[in-house]
Amino acid sequence: MILRLCLISILCLSLRADEGMWLFNDPPVAQLKAKYGFEPSPAWLEHVQKSSVRFNSGGSGSFVSADGLVMTNHHVAADCLAKISTRQKNYMSSAFLARSRADERKCVDLELNVLLSIEDVTARVNSAVTPGLDAGAAQKARRAVTNTIEKESLDKTGLRSDVVTLYNGGQYHLYRYKKYTDVRLVFAPEKAAAFFGGDPDNFEYPRYDLDITFFRAYEDGQPVKAQHYLKWSAAGPRDGDLVFVSGHPGRTSRLQTLRHMEFVRDRQNPTVLNLLRRREVLLKAFADRSAENARRAEDELFGIQNSRKARIGLMEGLQDPALFERKQAEEKTLRQAVTNNPEWKREYGDAWDQISASIGAWEGIYFDHYLVERGTAFNSGLFQIARDLVRLAAELPKPNAERLREYSEAGLDSLKQSLFSEAPIYDDLDTVKLADSLAMLVDLAGANSDLVRQVLAGRSPRQRAEELIRGTKLKDVAVRKKLFEGGQAAIDASGDPMIELAKSIDPAARKLRAMYDVKVDEPQKQAYGKIAQARFAVHGSSVYPDATFTLRLAFGVAKGYREDGRAISWATEIGGAYARSADHGNREPFNLPKSWLDRKNRLDLKTPLNFVSTADIIGGNSGSPVVNRAGELVGIIFDGNIQSLVFDYLYTEEQARAVSVHSAGILEALRKIYDAAPVVAELTR
Amino acid sequence: MILRLCLISILCLSLRADEGMWLFNDPPVAQLKAKYGFEPSPAWLEHVQKSSVRFNSGGSGSFVSADGLVMTNHHVAADCLAKISTRQKNYMSSAFLARSRADERKCVDLELNVLLSIEDVTARVNSAVTPGLDAGAAQKARRAVTNTIEKESLDKTGLRSDVVTLYNGGQYHLYRYKKYTDVRLVFAPEKAAAFFGGDPDNFEYPRYDLDITFFRAYEDGQPVKAQHYLKWSAAGPRDGDLVFVSGHPGRTSRLQTLRHMEFVRDRQNPTVLNLLRRREVLLKAFADRSAENARRAEDELFGIQNSRKARIGLMEGLQDPALFERKQAEEKTLRQAVTNNPEWKREYGDAWDQISASIGAWEGIYFDHYLVERGTAFNSGLFQIARDLVRLAAELPKPNAERLREYSEAGLDSLKQSLFSEAPIYDDLDTVKLADSLAMLVDLAGANSDLVRQVLAGRSPRQRAEELIRGTKLKDVAVRKKLFEGGQAAIDASGDPMIELAKSIDPAARKLRAMYDVKVDEPQKQAYGKIAQARFAVHGSSVYPDATFTLRLAFGVAKGYREDGRAISWATEIGGAYARSADHGNREPFNLPKSWLDRKNRLDLKTPLNFVSTADIIGGNSGSPVVNRAGELVGIIFDGNIQSLVFDYLYTEEQARAVSVHSAGILEALRKIYDAAPVVAELTR
Repeated sequence: MILRLCLISILCLSLRADEGMWLFNDPPVAQLKAKYGFEPSPAWLEHVQKSSVRFNSGGSGSFVSADGLVMTNHHVAADCLAKISTRQKNYMSSAFLARSRADERKCVDLELNVLLSIEDVTARVNSAVTPGLDAGAAQKARRAVTNTIEKESLDKTGLRSDVVTLYNGGQYHLYRYKKYTDVRLVFAPEKAAAFFGGDPDNFEYPRYDLDITFFRAYEDGQPVKAQHYLKWSAAGPRDGDLVFVSGHPGRTSRLQTLRHMEFVRDRQNPTVLNLLRRREVLLKAFADRSAENARRAEDELFGIQNSRKARIGLMEGLQDPALFERKQAEEKTLRQAVTNNPEWKREYGDAWDQISASIGAWEGIYFDHYLVERGTAFNSGLFQIARDLVRLAAELPKPNAERLREYSEAGLDSLKQSLFSEAPIYDDLDTVKLADSLAMLVDLAGANSDLVRQVLAGRSPRQRAEELIRGTKLKDVAVRKKLFEGGQAAIDASGDPMIELAKSIDPAARKLRAMYDVKVDEPQKQAYGKIAQARFAVHGSSVYPDATFTLRLAFGVAKGYREDGRAISWATEIGGAYARSADHGNREPFNLPKSWLDRKNRLDLKTPLNFVSTADIIGGNSGSPVVNRAGELVGIIFDGNIQSLVFDYLYTEEQARAVSVHSAGILEALRKIYDAAPVVAELTR
Repeated sequence: MILRLCLISILCLSLRADEGMWLFNDPPVAQLKAKYGFEPSPAWLEHVQKSSVRFNSGGSGSFVSADGLVMTNHHVAADCLAKISTRQKNYMSSAFLARSRADERKCVDLELNVLLSIEDVTARVNSAVTPGLDAGAAQKARRAVTNTIEKESLDKTGLRSDVVTLYNGGQYHLYRYKKYTDVRLVFAPEKAAAFFGGDPDNFEYPRYDLDITFFRAYEDGQPVKAQHYLKWSAAGPRDGDLVFVSGHPGRTSRLQTLRHMEFVRDRQNPTVLNLLRRREVLLKAFADRSAENARRAEDELFGIQNSRKARIGLMEGLQDPALFERKQAEEKTLRQAVTNNPEWKREYGDAWDQISASIGAWEGIYFDHYLVERGTAFNSGLFQIARDLVRLAAELPKPNAERLREYSEAGLDSLKQSLFSEAPIYDDLDTVKLADSLAMLVDLAGANSDLVRQVLAGRSPRQRAEELIRGTKLKDVAVRKKLFEGGQAAIDASGDPMIELAKSIDPAARKLRAMYDVKVDEPQKQAYGKIAQARFAVHGSSVYPDATFTLRLAFGVAKGYREDGRAISWATEIGGAYARSADHGNREPFNLPKSWLDRKNRLDLKTPLNFVSTADIIGGNSGSPVVNRAGELVGIIFDGNIQSLVFDYLYTEEQARAVSVHSAGILEALRKIYDAAPVVAELTR
């Protein structure tokens, strides 16, 4: 509907005034000044940037006290909460408040990153990848220069150093992060409060969720003395206020060509959705068997349901002819401008055909690559460990410049953090998952294929999965470490059935990887690089890159909208949670926890709980701080509404909204429901 | 595992002694006499046959009193229970007991059938379909003679008359049924008792379900005086007892060729499973939004989950190389025998290649046929009504012999019963279903296909579904009747958007139907007819036909089994339900209803509740009476265990079991939990 309305207006572009996930080294200063009369100073930008935190488990957060207190969403924290939970003590379902520093519970394998600097290394990358190279050589050269830049930076600074590909290949920036791996749980509400409304209310608004969790970052056993942290705004935003979002949007596809979009619509998304539905049904059936099963599968099931709902919303956009017409018009305008200028035509004119050719190559290997190299056919935590061990044995002896990207020197510490993690792996759940994914392999690759015969070894998928999980010793972290340290010789001698499986498919997997890298990824980087240059040439430099799970600045205003003729208010109140629960007969997932029921009459029920804004966000922004002009924290992003699900392809602001928890609602709940006086004191000091 | 054990023994065939879904006009007399020393008399067979009832909503049942009381499963009754439920009164979740005849609640559109006679019409069908005809002409001739036989029988006897294809085309029998359409609810337990353990326990054993419901059949406003009904055995069966199952197994595929099985494994089952998972996720998400949504979707969601679990079990069998090897060996033996006999070779030798060719033709149209002719792309009750109206207008003016099978004269009354049913259709649910299936159409047919453009008319799937459901008037039964009576002229003039849609795709759908009928169905009937003859020639006449949702007799013994080294008892006790509920913290779906909790101390907790037997059953057998040598009712089938899910392709009896409610447990619950004295009196009179 938004798209439809927008199409009949040539004002569309100018209307999308709050669009953009901007780079901190290229912020939207002109736009902010023109529309809101606000000019962020370099100090303001630095302060917000260095107060922002990336959760490498897949989300965002921020420092909110001088003593290293970090706030994120409960659903971002869930990865840690699930890993420290046991049959006896469930940190997801019950609330947790550390009564003292000693009480704080350490996460198993969480890594936080704070972005310290950005350096443009485009010229160095491009000088290594010279125009004369064929795709294979270009891909190797690009990998080599990237691995080398990262290693040099790591050696020089000791900081985590990632080369980030921007504009799908238009620019390369080196991001240096301060890394924290000792992260401890300070406060979490019950999941019933954090995710009130569950899957039905996910991506919906109005909303009533206390989707927050506090951690504390430690270094050398001491709480981090954060130089930069966001001061808490006790009042929070009001209707119409300008707000900023500083976080890590995961992925958008706004610069995709039409042909690429068609591939996503016709092949990739249907395949991924089939997989998500398959896994959802599998995990739901597993979870329903007992309370303990439900606990074991909970976090993964949530992730799947969340992706499923987001992807279906996205597919609704992709299958809407109106969206395609709009994208078609945009592409036509750009290509026409390129064609009309002889120099641009020569430089960029063939980029769209290159993308189409890369998609054609992708079509040819899509399922095999998806199953074997992506590992979709081997949906088991233990298999993933086996693959890493097998590949590390082969990659580490190579010069750093020649290694697969994920095994390069700069990333090794982070990889070991997850490879040697003591996070629990449940045999029953891993078996069910592996059996089902092997059955999917039979479906997609064909029962008579060599690959299937080799993988199943004469067993049915279930028998084979049981045999593998029962037989492997990789649950034991000491065994993993021994295999890692022993290198290729240890791998060759191991005889562990999961290692054997990973080894046996590795030649095929690597071949598919190489084909993908050379025929799909490298040509796309080159072609999208040209398209990015063409965009700069045609539209000027006010183009922001697609999201890459790196730090971005978005902005917008706290603002309601109209839906089906009704006005939807910019904010909800704490009292609304009780009303909504009652409307649903307190039936799960609309059942407020006991703490909320017991404390209801202490609360100021008019306190804002959630609010919406026009800021441009996407998955990965979960937990992002929302700040005001003064750089104070006024909220925390936790969702987008259903109308925002096409943001992957298209920003709109008629109805699409980012959804946040309001800073006033957080304080009210901490004070009166959770008796979390020490946390409140730390926040408001 | 069963299959694996069996492979190494050439005793396999002789071990499978309780195999078979036998025709009542060709019962396994010799087998019963040899193994159990029991010879069913013609009177015994007639009594059991005429006491058995088919539920046309998809299950079985039996007369259990002289006053027309009919027992079936709660999950078979669910179709009726859901249709008579409202937001205010939910017949699924609460128990119901009619205090008097006047209290009995009439079902909306339920039809029951009792088989009165069987006549072999193979010769007449085969004489119409002469060898010289090409497939198209043969298909027309077969349809004509079938429609004609049914119409003649209906005119002569007034009975519902169906020509049944047996042995996939080897024989044709005319089945005549007494039909009951005034069926009223007498007693139903809570779903929590009937389906205790829910989806997790479905197809599992040990089990503790009171999966029963009682209806009463009426005729001319009076309870039916049943000439044949099963006397109730208050004691029920003991371990080791011989039992019989008289019911309506829906479909098996035991006579399928290997090529056909491969098609099912590689194409059909994966496609159907994707569809089932897709619909399960969709309906679950819909149901979770509110209690009323859950009620609206409940019966359909159960059906989908039930099919999903059954199909996954079946796929586990099909993807087990051992099952294929066994089927391969069987097919090889049969084909070798045919090849070795020149006459057989001439008559039947080409049948397997004909099947392969038909599968090849099917491959070519599979998705289009599935989406458009099967209507999978238009998953809406209102669309189905529109299609029937559009096709009836075209078919009814034709001579009966030329009509599509489902619109032939003999079936018209039953069709009208469902077409003019006052069963509720919910706009919100129908919209969600239609939108999702249209999105699937875009996935599978391609966004740029002519069909998709025509169907979506420039809208997104969701917009189009909303427009169609909002615009159609077909919810009004009076509108349907008017369109039905007005014939083609009324259809042409209607302008109803759903009618327009059904009309617009009908040419394409009919073309696919014709291709399927001529290239797939007819050649398969001919080829499987030959294979059936070859089987008779090679193995003698002791071959039963694949299941066809017509009455069959199975037999076996009440008998436990061993699993993972543990002995699984032949029966469970009522007390076990309480224990299992406690083990699961009384968490849904292991929460016993209040009636059970309140009455626990009245019960003899040692009373048998469920029991297993080696009888050969499959979906459709739900609700089948289990009878003893004396022809008394000793139980009611409601499930098979997980090991029985390969019964579609292969009967085994090491672990595979049919699961029944025990007649003693039923009486105990009726008396002491439900205070259903009048029902008990009627059963035990």
